[in-house]
Amino acid sequence: MAIRTAQQYVESLRDDRVVYFMGQRVKDVTQHPILRICANWMAMDYFLQHDPNYQGLVTEKNEDGELVAFVFMPQRSAGDLLRLREIVKLWARVCYGKPPGAKFVGKDGLNAVTVVTQRIDRQFGTNYAERVEEYRKYLEKTDAAIVEAMTDVKGDRSLRPSQQKTHKDYYVRIVEERNDGIVVRGAKAHISGAPLSNEIIVLPTRAMREEDKDYAVSFAVPANAKGLTLISAEPEMKDAGNFFDYPIGASLYLNDAMVIFDDVFVPNERVFMKGEWPFAGQVAYMFGNFHRLSAETYKAVELELVTGAAALMAEYNGLERASHIQDKLTWLVLYTEATEVLGRAACEHCVSEPDSDLVYPNPMYANIAKFFFADNWHQATKYIQDIAGGIVATVPSAEDFMNPETHDMIDKYLGGKDGIPTEHRIRLIKLIRDLTSSYEDVLTIHAEGSLAAQKLSIYSLADFERYKAAAKRAARIKDGTKHPIFSPLPEFPIEIA
Amino acid sequence: MAIRTAQQYVESLRDDRVVYFMGQRVKDVTQHPILRICANWMAMDYFLQHDPNYQGLVTEKNEDGELVAFVFMPQRSAGDLLRLREIVKLWARVCYGKPPGAKFVGKDGLNAVTVVTQRIDRQFGTNYAERVEEYRKYLEKTDAAIVEAMTDVKGDRSLRPSQQKTHKDYYVRIVEERNDGIVVRGAKAHISGAPLSNEIIVLPTRAMREEDKDYAVSFAVPANAKGLTLISAEPEMKDAGNFFDYPIGASLYLNDAMVIFDDVFVPNERVFMKGEWPFAGQVAYMFGNFHRLSAETYKAVELELVTGAAALMAEYNGLERASHIQDKLTWLVLYTEATEVLGRAACEHCVSEPDSDLVYPNPMYANIAKFFFADNWHQATKYIQDIAGGIVATVPSAEDFMNPETHDMIDKYLGGKDGIPTEHRIRLIKLIRDLTSSYEDVLTIHAEGSLAAQKLSIYSLADFERYKAAAKRAARIKDGTKHPIFSPLPEFPIEIA
Amino acid sequence: MAIRTAQQYVESLRDDRVVYFMGQRVKDVTQHPILRICANWMAMDYFLQHDPNYQGLVTEKNEDGELVAFVFMPQRSAGDLLRLREIVKLWARVCYGKPPGAKFVGKDGLNAVTVVTQRIDRQFGTNYAERVEEYRKYLEKTDAAIVEAMTDVKGDRSLRPSQQKTHKDYYVRIVEERNDGIVVRGAKAHISGAPLSNEIIVLPTRAMREEDKDYAVSFAVPANAKGLTLISAEPEMKDAGNFFDYPIGASLYLNDAMVIFDDVFVPNERVFMKGEWPFAGQVAYMFGNFHRLSAETYKAVELELVTGAAALMAEYNGLERASHIQDKLTWLVLYTEATEVLGRAACEHCVSEPDSDLVYPNPMYANIAKFFFADNWHQATKYIQDIAGGIVATVPSAEDFMNPETHDMIDKYLGGKDGIPTEHRIRLIKLIRDLTSSYEDVLTIHAEGSLAAQKLSIYSLADFERYKAAAKRAARIKDGTKHPIFSPLPEFPIEIA
Amino acid sequence: MAIRTAQQYVESLRDDRVVYFMGQRVKDVTQHPILRICANWMAMDYFLQHDPNYQGLVTEKNEDGELVAFVFMPQRSAGDLLRLREIVKLWARVCYGKPPGAKFVGKDGLNAVTVVTQRIDRQFGTNYAERVEEYRKYLEKTDAAIVEAMTDVKGDRSLRPSQQKTHKDYYVRIVEERNDGIVVRGAKAHISGAPLSNEIIVLPTRAMREEDKDYAVSFAVPANAKGLTLISAEPEMKDAGNFFDYPIGASLYLNDAMVIFDDVFVPNERVFMKGEWPFAGQVAYMFGNFHRLSAETYKAVELELVTGAAALMAEYNGLERASHIQDKLTWLVLYTEATEVLGRAACEHCVSEPDSDLVYPNPMYANIAKFFFADNWHQATKYIQDIAGGIVATVPSAEDFMNPETHDMIDKYLGGKDGIPTEHRIRLIKLIRDLTSSYEDVLTIHAEGSLAAQKLSIYSLADFERYKAAAKRAARIKDGTKHPIFSPLPEFPIEIA
Repeated sequence: MAIRTAQQYVESLRDDRVVYFMGQRVKDVTQHPILRICANWMAMDYFLQHDPNYQGLVTEKNEDGELVAFVFMPQRSAGDLLRLREIVKLWARVCYGKPPGAKFVGKDGLNAVTVVTQRIDRQFGTNYAERVEEYRKYLEKTDAAIVEAMTDVKGDRSLRPSQQKTHKDYYVRIVEERNDGIVVRGAKAHISGAPLSNEIIVLPTRAMREEDKDYAVSFAVPANAKGLTLISAEPEMKDAGNFFDYPIGASLYLNDAMVIFDDVFVPNERVFMKGEWPFAGQVAYMFGNFHRLSAETYKAVELELVTGAAALMAEYNGLERASHIQDKLTWLVLYTEATEVLGRAACEHCVSEPDSDLVYPNPMYANIAKFFFADNWHQATKYIQDIAGGIVATVPSAEDFMNPETHDMIDKYLGGKDGIPTEHRIRLIKLIRDLTSSYEDVLTIHAEGSLAAQKLSIYSLADFERYKAAAKRAARIKDGTKHPIFSPLPEFPIEIA
Repeated sequence: MAIRTAQQYVESLRDDRVVYFMGQRVKDVTQHPILRICANWMAMDYFLQHDPNYQGLVTEKNEDGELVAFVFMPQRSAGDLLRLREIVKLWARVCYGKPPGAKFVGKDGLNAVTVVTQRIDRQFGTNYAERVEEYRKYLEKTDAAIVEAMTDVKGDRSLRPSQQKTHKDYYVRIVEERNDGIVVRGAKAHISGAPLSNEIIVLPTRAMREEDKDYAVSFAVPANAKGLTLISAEPEMKDAGNFFDYPIGASLYLNDAMVIFDDVFVPNERVFMKGEWPFAGQVAYMFGNFHRLSAETYKAVELELVTGAAALMAEYNGLERASHIQDKLTWLVLYTEATEVLGRAACEHCVSEPDSDLVYPNPMYANIAKFFFADNWHQATKYIQDIAGGIVATVPSAEDFMNPETHDMIDKYLGGKDGIPTEHRIRLIKLIRDLTSSYEDVLTIHAEGSLAAQKLSIYSLADFERYKAAAKRAARIKDGTKHPIFSPLPEFPIEIA
Repeated sequence: MAIRTAQQYVESLRDDRVVYFMGQRVKDVTQHPILRICANWMAMDYFLQHDPNYQGLVTEKNEDGELVAFVFMPQRSAGDLLRLREIVKLWARVCYGKPPGAKFVGKDGLNAVTVVTQRIDRQFGTNYAERVEEYRKYLEKTDAAIVEAMTDVKGDRSLRPSQQKTHKDYYVRIVEERNDGIVVRGAKAHISGAPLSNEIIVLPTRAMREEDKDYAVSFAVPANAKGLTLISAEPEMKDAGNFFDYPIGASLYLNDAMVIFDDVFVPNERVFMKGEWPFAGQVAYMFGNFHRLSAETYKAVELELVTGAAALMAEYNGLERASHIQDKLTWLVLYTEATEVLGRAACEHCVSEPDSDLVYPNPMYANIAKFFFADNWHQATKYIQDIAGGIVATVPSAEDFMNPETHDMIDKYLGGKDGIPTEHRIRLIKLIRDLTSSYEDVLTIHAEGSLAAQKLSIYSLADFERYKAAAKRAARIKDGTKHPIFSPLPEFPIEIA
Repeated sequence: MAIRTAQQYVESLRDDRVVYFMGQRVKDVTQHPILRICANWMAMDYFLQHDPNYQGLVTEKNEDGELVAFVFMPQRSAGDLLRLREIVKLWARVCYGKPPGAKFVGKDGLNAVTVVTQRIDRQFGTNYAERVEEYRKYLEKTDAAIVEAMTDVKGDRSLRPSQQKTHKDYYVRIVEERNDGIVVRGAKAHISGAPLSNEIIVLPTRAMREEDKDYAVSFAVPANAKGLTLISAEPEMKDAGNFFDYPIGASLYLNDAMVIFDDVFVPNERVFMKGEWPFAGQVAYMFGNFHRLSAETYKAVELELVTGAAALMAEYNGLERASHIQDKLTWLVLYTEATEVLGRAACEHCVSEPDSDLVYPNPMYANIAKFFFADNWHQATKYIQDIAGGIVATVPSAEDFMNPETHDMIDKYLGGKDGIPTEHRIRLIKLIRDLTSSYEDVLTIHAEGSLAAQKLSIYSLADFERYKAAAKRAARIKDGTKHPIFSPLPEFPIEIA
């Protein structure tokens, strides 16, 4: 069927999936007043596929001549990655900095197994790559909303999966192998949009050792698979549809869910790794390459919005000429644009997978980009809150602003610079409150891997031999080591007569 | 009547005050499900006055032999300030880092006018100090809940009060002078607890020039004064009484309100400044001295809590030995203890008001203490969120945890270190979410004056003559200036044979 | 004659130029024990032009078929800029992070006037571009060592050039116009390598107003021009040729000089701007674009060295596995690689000059790159000093290490990890001391324009309309403004049935 | 003899000590042109003891009625510690931020063994405290210049003393026990002023285990003890006596030396610990308490100077009204004053040693104070360099300024704000260069223990039980633990009717 409409997507969700929300089993997720907001956000992907302004960017004819989502196709060049990045930017711009989850994370999971199953097959003689290719075609044809599930619930963080004491299910694992498939148990946390998805692709969350073999598992299941339970996180937003008080929150409910696998059967054709433990870390790492780039991309767009909100607030308050305000705005611009450059460079300088026509984002740059924006986020928050003032915490509600008994008082007293309607100023204040929340903070530093995860990657990717060769040459340390860049260089002093 | 009970306080609020909340006029604030939470928090002050563990600290016999709140008495020594500080710490410990607003800010407003009216009277021959003394006695006897209102709504921040274009009421001002009093108009923002207070003391928010004379006004009114409207901010908390999901938020609702003066009459005996513009800045500044100390004091207690939550989370996750976690905890400890030291020093090294028996907190140290904690808050937030993990954003609701259909799954999978009940871990996660919010961020940097306000104070208080004398001596710059510390010092080199 | 040898370059410096150093007039700069070190460094450029490994990179045939320095040719594509960048990287790698000044800054001055004189000619009908082209050909043929002189001495920084009180010569200015040229007066500061150069190209240092017309002047003169005096800065290095104690300092003496124009005559053909004040700022700004890129490029190489020294020190001390050390090394890697990426992007995304075949580095990225490395430099210094330990401050001298009476004691006690020769460790310590100095700090933040200069550029280049459009759309502020990126986007909520 | 004159001190140094400097054995340290600068600095202590302005502060009558240095007396109250602090401030103000080493570090070593030997004696029945008391009296009477030697050279930092591979002498150790004393071997690094001292008191540098028993040793020796060799670090200063170019460097040469013990005999009466390994860490830690306070004290004075230099530079450049300059100055003031407060609090809130009349500085505050100033130093450096401008790196030499051929040019062009003599501005630039050096950086972060050492102390001193009790109470975690502060507090909600 290839690209679907928003309506077709929504209808596809009525399939008896097991979803809990705020203590209730939800019978039809598309009719639930809050979950529906998430569905609307997810649906934006399908909507854009039919928007003549953007269809050319987000869809492509596949080999069967069907119009399919470009993001389901394999990445074979820097150009492909840059187009992917443009799509994520479009998504993020439409959705105020949060790309709709219909395919956003799922595509990165798919890309990761696409690359790494080739490696597994080469070493173990398996046929996972073929299965992935079949799955990819299935996704193209069904235009499925696919999420990726990676982060295990982890239990005691100082212990490996097989060392856990309370029970052995803190990481998703194979509990039974059958001829036609496997049975899996465990739970994955923080899976945005899972209750509104069609497909869930599951990846291991870390490197494994041989004793963790059962935990080295990757597969895909439909969202209504038997044994699957989806428990929604408590939502941030209070008041569905109230775009005045929650201009972003009432539009974008990510509906992060815990996905629980209570002995779920997975048929062989959807199993992409089964005990090949040396590759568990590689899948996680390759997902990181793709997903940190995705992350940086939407964050660059979110920062555009944050910086804009700060600039506008300065203007509405009459402070756009104040030196210390300009100083903060300058920093926000730098933060925004450097994030953009660092992420784009991960595409432009992508890596070619050996013995393959695939490429993946430059791991060093993807990690630096993610770390850079996440590490500086709280500074940005501080600056925008500093510019906006205490009113972000104490702004009256929409109800009071609308109430004829109080409207005029609020309208009179919450004005800013002459000529700016008070309503505009209040809307902006609400936006800033929406942009700076505990939820947003945590998402920024933990989604797509914690700061520590990026640091680990950066350290392990670093070209220390080059760095040390530079230092040895400068310090005149002759210890017999050679380096192709530094050894041919002429030495000081040269003869100048 | 002197010290009241919590019940007496609550009853005193049924007085036809004009309070709006979420679009509704609230008839009886003590019966409103949300405002009642604020009342409960305010009442904690009255409750403690009768708690035998703490009565000795928080109350004192006045000259009439009545037991009154110590905080209503004038400050005459470092010991008084240190006791005041202990009271604020007690309040803040009881109330999870937020001292109950019954007298917290009000006392600082009262202290500020107590000091500055003496100065005004000396220059202008007025009798404001006597009025303040009468008012103080009234507060002692009625044991009133008193809030302070300072921050004007400000309009265009680049313009002075009298320069505003849209209208002239962006700062509270005198619109009419009568024989028996004055009529005031304007609005004050961010007045925590105002709808649950008995008295409101009003101070000017900044230094004024002669043309801003009408805005140089200070006075007190009851919360049900004719013409007064109190509009509550939209509350942070969603679910009154839900201590599981909002352990702090469901206990402490600050109920920040906008206080609107629509031509309110103030009798002469409650007017503490009327056009003496050179002192407007002094009142604001003196309030800052007292209130930045108060702020730092409760923040030191709040940081104790934040640091504890971080340490506990590390433990529950099994990460208390991880080097990078210990590094962050160390920083949190330093932040907590340095805040304590800096604030306490403002008491220990207080300033004696000339020609008076009053003292006030050391302005330099009070400002440094406030700036230090506010400037580092976002760093602390980042650290605790980093330690806590993504679950802070995606934790399920109490309802799902309590629901028998999902309880066991959540209980199984959200466990941490072996032996720690999952419920404890979830409660801690909820606490951390409650501690790190946009509201909290904004409160930290803007309450008690913005970072810029402290910087301005620090710069203007700095002993640059001493600093420059040190530099000139070291650089051997002989320009004829002398400094008592540096001029008598011997010069290099000395004769050593 | 086209490309010269190092020896030819050195001989060309014996031309009676007026150079002062440490209180002495230097008769022959090539024979002076300290200035000679600078000459050796400058000569490295000429040496590389004949090195078969690098000649292909650094030279090119011009239209006359002569082999000339590539850096003298105009920049017409991103490829040209990337090659320029590779040359600077080579220079910087050879010279331990400091590209030899023979053409390094001069080329950026030349590039700036190449672009901007086209603009002046278009507006004023002048023929400056032609003069620049002639001068460029002259440089190609003579293979001149050319430095650029921009920073005026400035006097009172709060006053514009024409407002200065003490005297009117704080910025270089035209004091006389003649038929055949102009006479200039003033002084330029911080001109690295000027006493060892052949040519000096002079640019205005800031935007000018009409009253500063006489200061809007750009020109070139030979280093031995009549009326020119070059006063060297006090050198950092103490002990010429001592590569043990000063592995970098004894190799690279930049010889920053003050260049004083005491009524120097400049013939018309070397005058590139004469009073066209609206373009003064443009030249300064265009120079910034080129030079901030150059700066970032050599700094990326210097950071490679700094990071290597830190990694090696950790290893030599046996601490390469310590978690807090790895944390700091990771940050250094990130700093190094992000600097590389940001600078390279300024080439990859260069700007085409309208009505011209010229390109110039992306101004936003060039400024961000410069700011990023300069703003973080002190942090890097702190980290490497922290890793290296107190011995950087207290390491004994080469003389003591060589002295047979003390050698064995030092050799025994200053050892680190077993197997690392003590001499290597000491050399590394000396290197780190050399890399972290007040000189280096100041160079990093002030060379190529101060942090404030980059901030000003970033602020003025920022696309605030885009940022604000994003914020308005999210906040649902409808004020009639339109933006090509945001206006076509679909609005929330969409219809999903 | 009690307090000596500067001359007496200098004469006492002619005692055949074995000192090496820049490859030469120095026969008479008092005649050496460079070491003499260090002697002059040390002598300042003796000079002040006779200065009528300061004698009352720095000296005291001992029980024998002799006037002795106050700093040799035991510390018995907060008042004693505050007076000690005033003395260090005086020293530091006289010596531009660097207290003369005559007794500065030695007193802290003496204080540390005074406290800890009491503990050792109680546990082991030894009589070390008596020996320390005798030694203290000896110091009072001889008015000796005493330095402390603590930091071992350490070899492989990942290995304990007894685990070292290359040799076993990387930490000072007992190589022979005799009836009348011990023989020690090893080397101590970074001992400022050792070549100009009379006495050296030696402390272990870290906690030891039983296998490191031989390294748990503390003792005192004269500077000319047989077997002792003192090797000076390479000095920072180039030009002895040149106060123009090196206003601080030419006054204060700290002469950090490596002190090598080549089988030095120590008689029993000077041995203060001999194998009591459980106390090795306690001595090191107690020294830290005293010395971090000392450090913070002189740093507060140095910061006064740094902040003054920055303020003066802003003024001389005409920029004292620029908003971004005032912002940086404000931060410098805050940094200066917070350092003062934190250090002073370590005295005011000192700890009483149990079963003793001794006190010592509050360890938590002493560590916080040290960490705070050290952690922020590079930021301060950056700010002052930013304010001062590139001229700090490129300022001409005194020789050029004095040379009549160039004086007028420099005088004309290096002027700043009208009315400020150029000479003053140049002197200030030289001062700033002197204040910001690699040496200064390293001293700041490594002297008195590295940043990591303070972090370790802060972590281990932290009252985590209090912090965690606060968090548990707020999160409503009932796990049976009790805390005296938190358990008695009333719980939310209270009954308010």
